[in-house]
Amino acid sequence: EKPKASANPGITEFVGTAIGDTIGLVIANVDPMLHEKMKIDPKYRSIGILGARTGAGPHIMAADEAVKATNTEIITIELPRDTKGGAGHGSLILFGAEEVSDARRAIEVALKELDRTFGDVYGNDAGHIELQYTARASYAINKAFGAPVGKAFGLIVGAPAAIGVLMSDVAVKTANVEVVGYGSPAGGTSYSNEVILQVTGDSGAVRQAVLAAKEVGIKLLEAMAGPAPSSTKPYI
Amino acid sequence: EKPKASANPGITEFVGTAIGDTIGLVIANVDPMLHEKMKIDPKYRSIGILGARTGAGPHIMAADEAVKATNTEIITIELPRDTKGGAGHGSLILFGAEEVSDARRAIEVALKELDRTFGDVYGNDAGHIELQYTARASYAINKAFGAPVGKAFGLIVGAPAAIGVLMSDVAVKTANVEVVGYGSPAGGTSYSNEVILQVTGDSGAVRQAVLAAKEVGIKLLEAMAGPAPSSTKPYI
Amino acid sequence: EKPKASANPGITEFVGTAIGDTIGLVIANVDPMLHEKMKIDPKYRSIGILGARTGAGPHIMAADEAVKATNTEIITIELPRDTKGGAGHGSLILFGAEEVSDARRAIEVALKELDRTFGDVYGNDAGHIELQYTARASYAINKAFGAPVGKAFGLIVGAPAAIGVLMSDVAVKTANVEVVGYGSPAGGTSYSNEVILQVTGDSGAVRQAVLAAKEVGIKLLEAMAGPAPSSTKPYI
Repeated sequence: EKPKASANPGITEFVGTAIGDTIGLVIANVDPMLHEKMKIDPKYRSIGILGARTGAGPHIMAADEAVKATNTEIITIELPRDTKGGAGHGSLILFGAEEVSDARRAIEVALKELDRTFGDVYGNDAGHIELQYTARASYAINKAFGAPVGKAFGLIVGAPAAIGVLMSDVAVKTANVEVVGYGSPAGGTSYSNEVILQVTGDSGAVRQAVLAAKEVGIKLLEAMAGPAPSSTKPYI
Repeated sequence: EKPKASANPGITEFVGTAIGDTIGLVIANVDPMLHEKMKIDPKYRSIGILGARTGAGPHIMAADEAVKATNTEIITIELPRDTKGGAGHGSLILFGAEEVSDARRAIEVALKELDRTFGDVYGNDAGHIELQYTARASYAINKAFGAPVGKAFGLIVGAPAAIGVLMSDVAVKTANVEVVGYGSPAGGTSYSNEVILQVTGDSGAVRQAVLAAKEVGIKLLEAMAGPAPSSTKPYI
Repeated sequence: EKPKASANPGITEFVGTAIGDTIGLVIANVDPMLHEKMKIDPKYRSIGILGARTGAGPHIMAADEAVKATNTEIITIELPRDTKGGAGHGSLILFGAEEVSDARRAIEVALKELDRTFGDVYGNDAGHIELQYTARASYAINKAFGAPVGKAFGLIVGAPAAIGVLMSDVAVKTANVEVVGYGSPAGGTSYSNEVILQVTGDSGAVRQAVLAAKEVGIKLLEAMAGPAPSSTKPYI
């Protein structure tokens, strides 16, 4: 899937769109009554909103770069069961800021990062696999997965979920990594058809684990339904 | 999506079909063993069944008119994650009645209302927005959302969920309405990719809030993926 | 949907593929760290993995034959909300074994059974119905539904869920069966758009109940959207 051309709707809250049917918005002063119903800390006068039909990992990784680069915090990360008939999630990520310019900047950074973070999402008619890697996790990754801030982090996803089980086993056998979390259709996902492994550790080991999982995942997916190309361009 | 032509299957329990892959059925005497497993109050000998692949709001609003017009009650409203690859819900709504003729009449009214209640559902490839409004909420709206019976009610839905956040903010800033509820992918939905706001208050204010949300919602959805027409014909 | 041709990916853990975007895998020695995160009993050194985008009932029935025929146990049965935009579930079923040859054999049996167990899945654009029947339930059916081992078992599914309500009522009125369970979008499913009834009892009665539900289900589904053929070949 390629990013779609988007017309500017002439709304000041609109920031932009990106791959995965992603939209980025800001609100300078959230209405107090809504603030309360959304259970947002009142100190965040302004919020940034990153939402997509397709993609959770890519958006969490993009948000992680955005919080590193701006004066914002991650308020919530919610994962609808979506991908437009696919096997995975969409996303709704809220950033909090005291100034709307900070919220806007965070959304701009995140939208720009998505082209990269979709690079190791590979798909075909049978499903998808996804790999993510960073040498230094920040607060979005911590919020989403409980992974330690400042350490290397790897995300391994296989769909249908059966593929993710084998990818996970290969990953942990390949290199000396620590498992942060394991998600499957009945726990740790929104009933998506995925197995999701999160690992941390030495950056070289994490990267090696992720790449080994990728190799077996692509082979299995392609055995099911033929070529499974990258959504954009591999980055790991 | 247009209503589909449907052949009568020659089954006495069949009432009809409507837009959204909706089917309406009745059962004159629910089997006692099934009655118990479904946790239905035994006093409802007869039930009406309204179910759809696409649409929750339209069906709840249609059911609300049906309970106003007939001697029935709403037993349950369940919202599967559906819309056939779309971002929202389907529905399963059960009406209880002492006489099967009442149950049948309720389903007939609801099926007929759907053409109207789909009027402010606007969609394109990126998602959908939905607006609903009534000057006087009845028992289906009360059951589904906890909104007060007899008062004006407005429903505001945006998908992907990011759009619904901004629509909600615009709605509550536009007019003096009271927020009844706020749903998002991780709470108040069945993991759908929607933000859903329910408001009550003075009928003029509710209508104004809903229409302001509609305006911003359509612009955002069209910025993502081009024209987002009404499913039938706008009614608000 | 027909089984897809699949290339062997040259991975020892790969067993095969089948209808429903199903893949079968084995792991001879699950990594101990992963073992723990997956909450698998350590006694199962080897696991068999059966996963699919489309199909839960067919896979549970196939797994049931596999545990009857091999020295394996069912570890977990998880049901993602999937079917690639359809109304139902996919599946992830794990078998435990002490020897990998047993795990492999179980997956081989299950993959082979799927052609049969998809036989009474009937679908069209509006939804699907599914019937399953066995004269003697084993441990997969027991694990998934709590049905008694060694007795006849019937599964009745209708989607959209409204159809399943009427199919259930017809089933229990047709023959003297006992209801084991009743699932609907808000309980007993992963928010799928299905009503699911499980029955047990005398084998003749169970089969009769299932066939009566099939007859009414097909008529309703076809009233919605035309012909609803079997996915493979009816077996009940």
